[in-house]
Amino acid sequence: MTEPTKDYLARRAEEINRWLDALVPQERVEPRLIHRAMRYSLFAGGKRLRPTLTLATGEALGADTDELMPAACAIEMIHTYSLIHDDLPAMDNDDLRRGQPTCHKAFGEATAILAGDALLTQAFRVLASDFPHRDAARQVRVIREIAAAAGTVDALIGGQMADIENEGREVDSITLEYIHRSKTGAMIRASVVTGGIIAGATCEQIEKLTEFANRIGLAFQIADDILDVTSTSEQLGKTPGKDQTALKATYPAIHGLEASRTRARELVDEAVGIISALDIESQTLEGIARFVIARSS
Amino acid sequence: MTEPTKDYLARRAEEINRWLDALVPQERVEPRLIHRAMRYSLFAGGKRLRPTLTLATGEALGADTDELMPAACAIEMIHTYSLIHDDLPAMDNDDLRRGQPTCHKAFGEATAILAGDALLTQAFRVLASDFPHRDAARQVRVIREIAAAAGTVDALIGGQMADIENEGREVDSITLEYIHRSKTGAMIRASVVTGGIIAGATCEQIEKLTEFANRIGLAFQIADDILDVTSTSEQLGKTPGKDQTALKATYPAIHGLEASRTRARELVDEAVGIISALDIESQTLEGIARFVIARSS
Repeated sequence: MTEPTKDYLARRAEEINRWLDALVPQERVEPRLIHRAMRYSLFAGGKRLRPTLTLATGEALGADTDELMPAACAIEMIHTYSLIHDDLPAMDNDDLRRGQPTCHKAFGEATAILAGDALLTQAFRVLASDFPHRDAARQVRVIREIAAAAGTVDALIGGQMADIENEGREVDSITLEYIHRSKTGAMIRASVVTGGIIAGATCEQIEKLTEFANRIGLAFQIADDILDVTSTSEQLGKTPGKDQTALKATYPAIHGLEASRTRARELVDEAVGIISALDIESQTLEGIARFVIARSS
Repeated sequence: MTEPTKDYLARRAEEINRWLDALVPQERVEPRLIHRAMRYSLFAGGKRLRPTLTLATGEALGADTDELMPAACAIEMIHTYSLIHDDLPAMDNDDLRRGQPTCHKAFGEATAILAGDALLTQAFRVLASDFPHRDAARQVRVIREIAAAAGTVDALIGGQMADIENEGREVDSITLEYIHRSKTGAMIRASVVTGGIIAGATCEQIEKLTEFANRIGLAFQIADDILDVTSTSEQLGKTPGKDQTALKATYPAIHGLEASRTRARELVDEAVGIISALDIESQTLEGIARFVIARSS
């Protein structure tokens, strides 16, 4: 059932990669080392789920791909920066990411810190770029949405901070949901909502899109936690069970594997219900929602 | 001669601090640790030179203080983030900053990395904020200007990268000017130009403001290098001579102390000449230009 979605995602990833290639300085631009490190991590083979959500949402609401691409790519840059910094020795201390040495393993810590900073900064530069057909008011709204989602309050950095603070402690389900909602959920929500803003969605539509995104964001994180427990290193491209050994907060650790799978399925069913009730071309988004947990069930 | 400017800067710093206090989450907001770390570094007693340049430039061209403050504060947040990351063990490994323990010394490395990330992100959030009287088109232009100056190409991160790459090597004057222009100059230029954009400056005015800012930016960095050679630890609030012992690229190391002082004075004279030729209230900017090197001559 998810085969068409898999093909769709692969096609979109290629398209997104072409844009990303154009939106980040080439390796020959000085200082070369920083651009090499940025591109190394950016093109390490991510699924491009977040930018694809921006494209699929915006297109479902009638926006053109070209209008959506800069924002979609900016979101992927922010995602990549967060992975580079999370992998650092002072943070999660990971040597492998997507089967390859992490940025600091390949380029050293100083360069990895700066490469992360640079991807975050470049993301906002791209979001503020002077592209044809841009609408300044919508552009500012998108920047506000994304900066909030990447920030500290119920957002990306806040989630990572809480995750680190709770390492080595047993966390309850409320703290766990807070971490998931912030660390993964906020940017997934921003990916979807950004597509809506660019397409000129109504307030009611943005609200529904937010509800849809909140559910697939949590489902995605639960699926990720499940995969960490059940996968081999080869499948995962990173050290499996790492979250467990470091006593990191994961969904299966608190609720068990079967309850986690059930909860992820429920969330996706709810998400599909919400999106299909909107008067838009929702099939692609439904497919992506189902795909989000397909890897883990 | 610089006494009135000193009073002026102190007054503006107070004003800026009040706005910064309102524009960054309070310590009681969760996750508290990240907000404590952000505020610790943000309120560690900087001179607020960059935001003051934004205010002074914008006001000289007729803008209201309230219109300028969010952007001015965002620039200071970016400056603070760059200091936090530069001080990290993997980078310059500094224990002291403005006479106090650096962020990672006070809060640990993970929190310091995240606090830097968070200040950078919050800066863009503030720049995209929905303040009264904002003009979305100008707002986007300001974000583009600042993101470019904080980036990798002839900009903040690129300068820090080149600085680190050249540590322990003898650098020539061309490389040194590149590092200074990128690492310090770009954000000082953005501070001035941002004031101009918000005030609705003409292309010709922006050009002159850029020439003015380029000169005081370089003069400022030369003065900073001179201070590092001539000051005691107490005056400086950090370990003096550190740049020299690490064979860091500094202006006096290449050109000698006297030639450095002469060059800084020439640059400021040129800057004053440029700004006084503009048909604006330029006295405050002239005073700031002279103040920039007053500490070192």
